[in-house]
Formats: sequence, structure tokens, C-alpha cells
Amino acid sequence: MSSNSFGKLFTVTTFGESHGPAIGCVVDGCPPGLAIAPEDFRADLERRATGRTRHTSQRREDDVIEILSGVYEGRTTGTPIALLIRNTDQRSKDYGDIVETFRPGHADYTYWQKYGIRDPRGGGRSSARETTMRVAAGVIARKWLAERYGVRVRGYLSQLGEVAPTAIDLDAVEQNPFFWPDTAQVAELEAYMDALRKSGDSVGARVTAIAEGVPPGWGEPIYGKLDGELAAAMMSINAVKGVEVGDGFAVITQRGTQHRDEIHLDGFTSNHAGGILGGISTGQPVVVSVAFKPTSSILVPGASVNLAGEPVEVVTKGRHDPCVGIRATPIVEAMLALVLMDQALRHRAQCGDVGAVSPRIP
Amino acid sequence: MSSNSFGKLFTVTTFGESHGPAIGCVVDGCPPGLAIAPEDFRADLERRATGRTRHTSQRREDDVIEILSGVYEGRTTGTPIALLIRNTDQRSKDYGDIVETFRPGHADYTYWQKYGIRDPRGGGRSSARETTMRVAAGVIARKWLAERYGVRVRGYLSQLGEVAPTAIDLDAVEQNPFFWPDTAQVAELEAYMDALRKSGDSVGARVTAIAEGVPPGWGEPIYGKLDGELAAAMMSINAVKGVEVGDGFAVITQRGTQHRDEIHLDGFTSNHAGGILGGISTGQPVVVSVAFKPTSSILVPGASVNLAGEPVEVVTKGRHDPCVGIRATPIVEAMLALVLMDQALRHRAQCGDVGAVSPRIP
Amino acid sequence: MSSNSFGKLFTVTTFGESHGPAIGCVVDGCPPGLAIAPEDFRADLERRATGRTRHTSQRREDDVIEILSGVYEGRTTGTPIALLIRNTDQRSKDYGDIVETFRPGHADYTYWQKYGIRDPRGGGRSSARETTMRVAAGVIARKWLAERYGVRVRGYLSQLGEVAPTAIDLDAVEQNPFFWPDTAQVAELEAYMDALRKSGDSVGARVTAIAEGVPPGWGEPIYGKLDGELAAAMMSINAVKGVEVGDGFAVITQRGTQHRDEIHLDGFTSNHAGGILGGISTGQPVVVSVAFKPTSSILVPGASVNLAGEPVEVVTKGRHDPCVGIRATPIVEAMLALVLMDQALRHRAQCGDVGAVSPRIP
Amino acid sequence: MSSNSFGKLFTVTTFGESHGPAIGCVVDGCPPGLAIAPEDFRADLERRATGRTRHTSQRREDDVIEILSGVYEGRTTGTPIALLIRNTDQRSKDYGDIVETFRPGHADYTYWQKYGIRDPRGGGRSSARETTMRVAAGVIARKWLAERYGVRVRGYLSQLGEVAPTAIDLDAVEQNPFFWPDTAQVAELEAYMDALRKSGDSVGARVTAIAEGVPPGWGEPIYGKLDGELAAAMMSINAVKGVEVGDGFAVITQRGTQHRDEIHLDGFTSNHAGGILGGISTGQPVVVSVAFKPTSSILVPGASVNLAGEPVEVVTKGRHDPCVGIRATPIVEAMLALVLMDQALRHRAQCGDVGAVSPRIP
Repeated sequence: MSSNSFGKLFTVTTFGESHGPAIGCVVDGCPPGLAIAPEDFRADLERRATGRTRHTSQRREDDVIEILSGVYEGRTTGTPIALLIRNTDQRSKDYGDIVETFRPGHADYTYWQKYGIRDPRGGGRSSARETTMRVAAGVIARKWLAERYGVRVRGYLSQLGEVAPTAIDLDAVEQNPFFWPDTAQVAELEAYMDALRKSGDSVGARVTAIAEGVPPGWGEPIYGKLDGELAAAMMSINAVKGVEVGDGFAVITQRGTQHRDEIHLDGFTSNHAGGILGGISTGQPVVVSVAFKPTSSILVPGASVNLAGEPVEVVTKGRHDPCVGIRATPIVEAMLALVLMDQALRHRAQCGDVGAVSPRIP
Repeated sequence: MSSNSFGKLFTVTTFGESHGPAIGCVVDGCPPGLAIAPEDFRADLERRATGRTRHTSQRREDDVIEILSGVYEGRTTGTPIALLIRNTDQRSKDYGDIVETFRPGHADYTYWQKYGIRDPRGGGRSSARETTMRVAAGVIARKWLAERYGVRVRGYLSQLGEVAPTAIDLDAVEQNPFFWPDTAQVAELEAYMDALRKSGDSVGARVTAIAEGVPPGWGEPIYGKLDGELAAAMMSINAVKGVEVGDGFAVITQRGTQHRDEIHLDGFTSNHAGGILGGISTGQPVVVSVAFKPTSSILVPGASVNLAGEPVEVVTKGRHDPCVGIRATPIVEAMLALVLMDQALRHRAQCGDVGAVSPRIP
Repeated sequence: MSSNSFGKLFTVTTFGESHGPAIGCVVDGCPPGLAIAPEDFRADLERRATGRTRHTSQRREDDVIEILSGVYEGRTTGTPIALLIRNTDQRSKDYGDIVETFRPGHADYTYWQKYGIRDPRGGGRSSARETTMRVAAGVIARKWLAERYGVRVRGYLSQLGEVAPTAIDLDAVEQNPFFWPDTAQVAELEAYMDALRKSGDSVGARVTAIAEGVPPGWGEPIYGKLDGELAAAMMSINAVKGVEVGDGFAVITQRGTQHRDEIHLDGFTSNHAGGILGGISTGQPVVVSVAFKPTSSILVPGASVNLAGEPVEVVTKGRHDPCVGIRATPIVEAMLALVLMDQALRHRAQCGDVGAVSPRIP
Repeated sequence: MSSNSFGKLFTVTTFGESHGPAIGCVVDGCPPGLAIAPEDFRADLERRATGRTRHTSQRREDDVIEILSGVYEGRTTGTPIALLIRNTDQRSKDYGDIVETFRPGHADYTYWQKYGIRDPRGGGRSSARETTMRVAAGVIARKWLAERYGVRVRGYLSQLGEVAPTAIDLDAVEQNPFFWPDTAQVAELEAYMDALRKSGDSVGARVTAIAEGVPPGWGEPIYGKLDGELAAAMMSINAVKGVEVGDGFAVITQRGTQHRDEIHLDGFTSNHAGGILGGISTGQPVVVSVAFKPTSSILVPGASVNLAGEPVEVVTKGRHDPCVGIRATPIVEAMLALVLMDQALRHRAQCGDVGAVSPRIP
């Protein structure tokens, strides 16, 4: 498997740089017969897109997906599905001054140390622009999972800097540009972000995603565990520094009596495990949380060095999000869907398609 | 890649059940010429082994490694290295009463739902017994990394329930059975564990591992990022529910000015990133932290159901650790070493063996 | 690895249908710093293209490669290289009458049985159109192999129906449209093909490819042997039914004294092995031969059934080659180069970049 | 995937050297619930074993398989199945004189050039001893394929030097030690082999294997084609220099009218394709043929060089087969079964388990 590919059986290979001619992906292994049209991608791409609120980057991404292969008369054929988006708003001049400089907190220095060469246009390959194609591939996975198994994947911003939700209402999430699960707090978030922008600084965030309807039995022990694959998927998203399944780091101070999810005839009494035991889904909702760091693309000057080995002061102009976590919710959802899709196919390869055995805990 | 294999180029395939005849692994892709003897494995296996203090499981594991292949006259030949440990202390009768029952918080139910069959002897494949072979394979990786690149991997218990270290002294870690970085607290930990055992309950823990000497440039964007692979590796360890790189979840409330590691001519001023930017090592220490849940194998009865679909009360007898995190340090270290080893080989495949380019940040 | 990807470390993923909007590929794992421009692809694509002589399909393929990613200022950056060719001459109407029919000797029936759906436009994914992207990816591999190791890959048509070369002059190959190694026979081949076309029938062919300059040591035992990977690569080409390395099937009647290549201080005395022993290159030229079946797209009617389960008579109109082997030489060369490139990277991953040890047989 | 592993979803990883302490394999991905006992392996291992006739090596291999994992109460559990055979008859002294020498036609020189080190004991890893574990893994695949799909895999020696079968009677194959499909020729073969042994020389052979009952639809275009995977599998067997599917190299001189398998309502009229079109099974028998070279381990002296770079004369003493193809039939069968097993799982991953659609050609 190449390192720009994700998934063992439902394999997504992405390509493209932030300010190159195009970005795209190849989705290989999709079951045949799934109805897919260019319109299917619109909603999720817009949810992820920049430029929708004044709190995210003002770069316009009018992303139009072209389906290049793998779909015939509106249905997948089983052959690889190639998706392409032309980059239209590539203001490379914004980045001209960083060509010679290693921005602190960015991948500039590490790409250059690895490859001895780098594409400075908008961060090149290391830009979050790449995640557009994850969302696109995720659309296919979500559709198949929903149609075939009734799986529903949703996410929300579960923390913005110091602000945590006062209530979790998943229906509220799509009603505000913060993917926030409590509409009552939206004004507070607006004020928080306005103050942040004025300071020229950025802040971190937490995103949580939930998959309901996942049947028990998905996930492959030992090194292909459902939670292991989720961790890899989430940590591969730009700016992510931590991944939790279920109660996550809170388990450190928990007691066994507190953490274990007891089982009654009418089901589990709790879901501290986040729907996964031994790397395999339990049938409860799969719950994963992710920590996004504050972006290093800020207006406050920072110390660095340049290619000539001289000290420099770096200010990142251009169009950047003061909180990259805000529009990351669709990306986290997409990665959750991609992992589940892959595991669904892996499960039926080894164990067939019969589904769970009895007794099955409701 | 099969799901019982880990690593793309330095590939470790493990096999064996907790109370089957043997456990083992096949290490494929090891560079030739590395000196390896059975004695090399002893120290790390003992560090991981149970039965060493009264705070870990009293099962005796006198693990003797047999090298079945891949080593000739004391040196690796480039062919697969098979390692075998016979299981000697398999008191299966301890587990007789759980054959028909799904223990809460265990993989019993999920394995059974996945496969329609399960090996109940000591948890079978889902037992932490499997991690013995990770530690063994890790020995080979650590030795090669040290000899070839001067990489040093160390770990410690960074939290035990509510108790956090008051100081971090890596030299203290091997001086006490808790892998604790502050010797002054050992008596406190002893008392904490004694009280816990009396209660019949268990508690979670945090383990941190650090790799020093990692050259810049290791890690493969996008889906083979160093941190992504670390996350997968760590989450695949039994009982792990969360993974952090660098500052981890603390980034949520950080500001960009606070998080970004500024660069001066004499080096980075901080290491909030945990030694990884854009999925590639920076040359700073690679730092990863892991949350272990409190084991569900406790003496306090819990509600569950059995194979007949009847409600039952479960008490887990047998020999179990009240805090599985205590002896997990060598496992976390091993997984860190395995990921680095694999990335080292992947890096030199694509980019050659020349190492970092100038200017290199010290 | 997905099934539309080839290569473990130098990974080529192709997509696209014969008469869909475009074909393309993603080349992942290419070392950074290699100079690549759109012009580099022209020569090999033209060598492969149809419509160049009256003996190959008259479909015009004015294939213009667009480099979508992975190249910055004319050099590879180490990120995935996406190549795209728009399909321009898609006369789908030619294929209208085969939508309902399973053409004998084609993949119509098997695709339909596998997927329950098929893209009939020009054979869809099963068309040899896909091999265009193999040739394109092969250009990159050939360039790197030549610059880095001095490897030179060449091929020729080594049999056309009953006609075998009377001499092997590799310099003659590019002088005639048959890739024939003996210019003196070209008129004979022209007459042979004219007679064949008049008959409405087709014929098979043999293609041989040779790689000179391959250092000893490439190839991974046991299941990644150089010859094993070559066999997979060649058999994956459309219409190939057999693969030989070195003396191939002639070894059946050979004696050991005859087959083994003896070694003297000035080198091997022969190359019956085709440059590979134990799956690893010897340093001699790597020689592989491939058998192409006569295409089933012929004007002579054949019996088949249709989707309704009724007997039908099939005549394949459209633009088809009476001997598909003729223009397969660049494809065979490309696959040989792709396998070598992948093995070169695999070798330096495990064994470093130091090259062969002494004594080295010249 | 590591290079000592075979198969994407039914993954067999082998380890061990010819004269090391043991050989073994790990079979990962086997569906749960399959009945497997040590006795199941006996027949096929004996068929492959040396020492059964005076025409094969006189090394005794009393191979007793130990099942180390993955089977509980006689049934596979879905976890990795480890199989182990201790090497008992390791007369390393026979090989003492070749430590310093590169035997012509062997892998001595290439292993040494690749790894800078080699295990000379009986050829180490490059010995055909490794194929024992392929046969063992093949037993599991054959059993599952037979029970689940009714697939039957058989093979025979289809040429021995210049001698070809005068009739093909698959029921005769197990009646003679040559796996010969015509009992009437057995005396002739005995005389042929006696003369060969007297000459101190060796000869090549052809083996053919057939799988009946394979449903249409197995095989993954483009780079995971059924025939592509077969070619890789077969070419990875020691001493194989050529692979054919269906008519193989005979297609070169065939006409399209002759080669294409026409279709009538009662089925295909022929099977020139060998049961595969476009890389996917047609439902006809899958037919593959393999060319084995004459072993280079012969008593006739040959020229070579040694580690010191001096010319030497090599005579291979020890216990060797004058025709290694004779006992290769079970190995070829096993590889065919392993490929089919893997493709069966891959097919049901992507396309489900519903089987072929209508109309299906009988």
C-alpha cells in the first residue's frame, strides 16, 4: 500500500497540491451498483469548504467534482472511481515570501528535510486542501453504509478553546456554522472568535464523531482493530494531536466498576467503550474524539530560520482559519465513514455477509 | 497486509492464544548483519512480564524465546526471523466458568459476534499475552535503530489513577517496579495499589514514551504519517482508549502563539509538537502518550448475559492486574520502536540513506 | 494494496475506461528530485499508440499527458504524481451493438458475472486503453533507473504468428513499425499482415524485453521474487497467456549441464537463467518473454449468447488490431521497468544503497 | 505486505531454513468454523515429500505438523493459524564444502550479493524445503474451497524431459510416484530416470494443475487478475522458469477464430482461455502449466568461483532430485488453491456472496 492511499479494501488514493492545477482521488474497491452522481458530493463539500463564514479562511473554493471513471449510467461499476477538482483560486503570490522560510509549526522544515525539495505554493501537499478529497470519498462510503447497513455518521464541534457545549443536540449541529451541538451558545462562540481574530492568534478545538447502526463484529484483531484504524485515520488529518475512543483519556482516573459497560437483556447500560471492545464493534454507537491544535498560520510574528540558515521573523499572511477545528467536522466524519466502510468489506471477506449471531445485545 | 501483521517494510506477524500451546511472531524485512541472540530478549521480556511485583498478575511467565529462523551464526541474514515462546503456565481451569458468559468490558461478546466461535482459554487471542511478541520484535527494532542511527527509546508510567509524577527523571524509571519517573513517590504508589486491591477494583493509567535521536525526515505523508502510524500502533495495544502526540489534548485550549515551536539557530525553543510536523519527524524527541483503561477483570460482580441469553452475574477470578498500565511501559516502547524502524526503512527506500539536508536545526 | 494498483513502493494506480471521459494514473513513492516534463512521455506513448501503421487499430489516440501533481519546477517532489489523458476519440456508437452481447474471448461475460453490471463502451475498463498509463508510469521508472543505476530497458517482437526473427539486432527495432529485430524481414511481415487482414482473422505474437545494467541483488525472496513480480506484471497485460524468464519453457527438455550458467572469473558463460537466480538478479541482463493471444475482435462471425439468454452471432466491427502483440512491446518494456523500479526501492529499504559486495561477477 | 507473505486476504507467511531448527507458516484470514486437524495435512505432505521413490532425493522428511494457534476444539477460530514442522534430518555436513563456493545455477551468489551474508546450510531459505509450508497452507485452502464452493484442485506431471503423456487420465495420477496421467508409460519413465541418474545429470519438467468448480467472477482487474496472481504464485516456486494459462505459448501461432472459446446455450465449446477472461474466472476449469528447470545440483562438475574470487570446480553431492518437477505437483496444486482462496475472499468483500448472475453459462 502506498502512503497516499488509505484503506485496505475500500482504498482511497489522493493526489494534488494546494495550489497546483488540481486535486483528486481514486476510490478503489467500491461495490458495484451504488448510485452516485456529482450532486451527491455537493452538501459535504460545502460543509467543509472555506469562505462560508467570517470565522474561516476567506479563500473561495468553488469545488466542482468531476467523476472521471468507475460510474456508468449513474451507478458504480466496481472499477476505480476517479474524482477530480480543478483548483481555481490559487493566489500563489500570497505565499511568495515563505518560499525561503520555515514557518514554525508547519511542515515546511520536515518536508524539506525529507525530500530535499518542497512545493511552497500554499503548503503544497501538506495543506488541508487535501482533505477535500477525503470528504468526497467519504460521501461514497457514507452512502453505501447507509443503504446497505443503515449506518449513520454524524459529528460536531465538542470544544472550542475553553468553551464546551452546555448540551448535546445533534440536530442543532447543521443549524449553525460552528457545527455546535447547542444553538444557545452560538452568540458566545461568535464573540469568542471575533476576539480571537482581533488578537491575531489562533486556538485549538475538539471534534467528536459518532456512527450509529454499526453492527457488532466489524474490526480486525490485532493490528487491524477498528479503533486502531480509526486512530490512524484521525491522526492523519492535518493539525490533529490526539485521538480518543469512547471515554478516552478520562479512563485514566476511572475505576473498573465505573468504566466497564454492564450488559442486560435489553442492552448495554452505558457506552464508556465507545462501541468497540477488543478492536471489534459491539453494536453500540462508535464514538471517537479528536484534538485539533491551534493553527500556526497567525499574524503574531514568530522566530524561525531560513534556507540560508539565518534567523528570520515569520508572519503568516494569506487567508487562514483562526480555528481549523471549526470546519473539520465533515473531515472527521468522512474518516470515520471510510474506516467503517473498509472494515465492513473486510468483515464480509473473512466472515461472510450473514451478520451477527444470537444472542445479540440490542 | 494481513490484520495480524504490523509494519509495511519491517513487518511483524504475531500468532498464538493466551493459553494455547505457544505464542510467536515472524519478523520480516529486517536488514541483514544485525547481531541477535536469545539473551537480547531477556531484559525487555522480564520488564513486561507478570509476576514480578505483587501489584501485577501472579501468573508466572518464564518466557524463553527460541529463534527458529533468520539468524545464522548470531547475525540476521535478511530472511524472516521467527520467534517462539511455549506457554507453560496455562491454568485453563481458571477460565472454565467464563466459557458460556460474556464478561463486561471484555472482547468475549465481540469476538463471538464476529466469528461465531471463540477460544475462551484466557481470553484467547484477545489476551494481552500477545503483546509479549511485540516486545520481542521491538528488541530487534531497538537494537538496529540504536546501532544504525543512535535512536534511544524510553518510556515511563506518567499517571496512575489520580497520581501524577511530581518530577520526570528517566533514570529513575528502571529503579522501581512501577516504571515511575520519581522515586520519591514509590511508597505512595504502593499504598495506592494496596488499597485498590483490597477494594477488588481496578484503575486506569497513562504511559508516555520518548524516542531521542530520531533524524528529521522520517514519516510518510499523507496516510503513512509518523504520528498516524504511532496512533494505530498504540491504539492496537489492549486496553488503550486514547493516544496523544506531543501536547495532545492540551492543544484544545492552547493559542497558536503558545503551541508553535519557534526555531532559533541553536534549535527549537520547545517541543509542543512532540517531534512531528506534517507527519514527518523534526529531529526533536518523538513523544507519545497513551491512556489505559481500568481492566474489567475485577472481583466486584457485574451484570451480563450468557450464551443462552440469560442474565448472569460475572466475577472475574484468576490472576489479573488491578492496573494493566503498570507493566505496559515496555509494550508502548516496543510499538514506538517498531513504528520508527518501519519508517526508517520506508524513508531510505524513497529518499536514500543520505540523511538530512542543510541547514539542519540542532 | 488495491487491485488497480501495481508495485509495493513505487506504486502505480490506474483508472479510467476506454471510452469514458479520461484515463489516468497516480504514481506514488517516486524519489524526489527527478526531472520530469510532459515531453518525456511523448516518445513512448507514440510507440504504443494505435493508428501509426495500417496494421494496427485506426483509432486515433492523440494522447496528451497532463501532470496534475507531484512535480514542482520540473522536478518530482516525492508526493504522488498524477497523470491525466482526456479521451478524445470515443466513437461509442461502434460498440452499441455489443451492449447486450457477450463477445467470445472477451471479458464481457466475466465482468458481468463479477459485478452484475458492465460498462460496454469500448470494453470499458478491460480495454487495452488502460495500458497507456502503464507506459506513462514506465517512463518515470525508466528515467530514474537510467539516471540512478544505468539500467536500460528494451524490447522487441520476437515472434509474429509463425514468423520468427532470423537475427536479433536491437538497434533495428525502432526502425520499423513492427518492433522487429531484423529489418530484412519487414516486407515479409507486411505481406503476412495484409493476408491476415484480408482473412478477417487475427494472430498471436511473442514479445521479449531485456533490462541491461541491473545490479545483482534486486528481488525479494520468497513471494516478492523478481521473476514472480515480473510474471504478475506481464500476465496482467491484456491478452497475455504465458510468461517466460530466461529459457522459459525450453528448460523442460534441457539437462542440468546445459541449463546452469557456469561462472568464470570474467563472468557467466551463458544466461539461460535470464538474469535471475532464487528470485534475485545476478547482474546479467534480465530477460522476459510474453505470449499474446490472437485478439477475439475479428470480422469472422462467432457463436455466443446475449443478456436475454438467446443464441447470437457476433462480428466485432470497430477499429481493432489483427495482432495486438505488435504494439505491445512498449507495454512489456514498461512493466519490466516498473517491476525493476519497485525492486530497486525495496532493495535499498532493507539492504541500503551500498550496492553489491565483492567478489562481484562482471 | 512482507515478501515472505503470500495472498492479500488469505495470507500465508512462511519462515525457516532448510537446515535450521524448524520451518513454519502463519495463515491469516482463514474464515472461522472450518474443521482442521493435524491429520488433514498428512496426505499432501507425503505426496510432496522426498524419499518416497528412488527417483527423488533420499533425504527423509518425516514431517509432523504441529498446529500452534488458530484452532480451538478442532475448528478454526478466525485468528491466525500457525503451523510448525521441526527439521529432523539436517545433515549439514553434506553442505560443508559449499560454504565458500557459489554453485552455478543456485541462489548462492545472488543471496550473498543481496544480503552480504548467507546461510549455506542446505541452501538456507532458498531451498525447496520452504514449499512444504505452501503445501500445508494449501491443505486449508483446498478444504475450505471444497466445502464452501465445491472447488476441486488437481495436478499432474504433463511432461518429463522429452516424454509427454500419451493420454490424460486424472484418476491415474495418484497411482504412480510420477503423478503421471497415463499408467501405461510408468515403466518408460522409470527407465528414463534410471538412465538420467547414471549420467549424473538432471532434466526439466512440466506440471499442469486444474481447478474445477470455480464459479465465474473470481479475479480482480487490473493488477489483481486471477491469472496475474497465478503467474506470481507459480513463478515463486523454486526452479520455475515459465507459466502458462490455458493454451499458453501455443497462442502465438493460433488464429483468433481458433483461440476464442465460442459460447452456446449449453456452454463454452472449448477452453483455450484456461477458464479466465479479462483476469476473471469464466466458470470453466482454471488451467495453469508450469516449466521446471533441471536442477543444478548434479554430479557433473561445473565451473564457478569462490568467496576468495578464485576459480573452482563444483560437484553437488548430497541428496538431490534429478528431476525436481516430479514431486512439484502438490506444490503447484497448493499455489493454485491459495490463489483461488484469496480471490474467493476478495470477491465476496467487494461483490458479496450472492454468486453469479443470470444468464450463467453452464
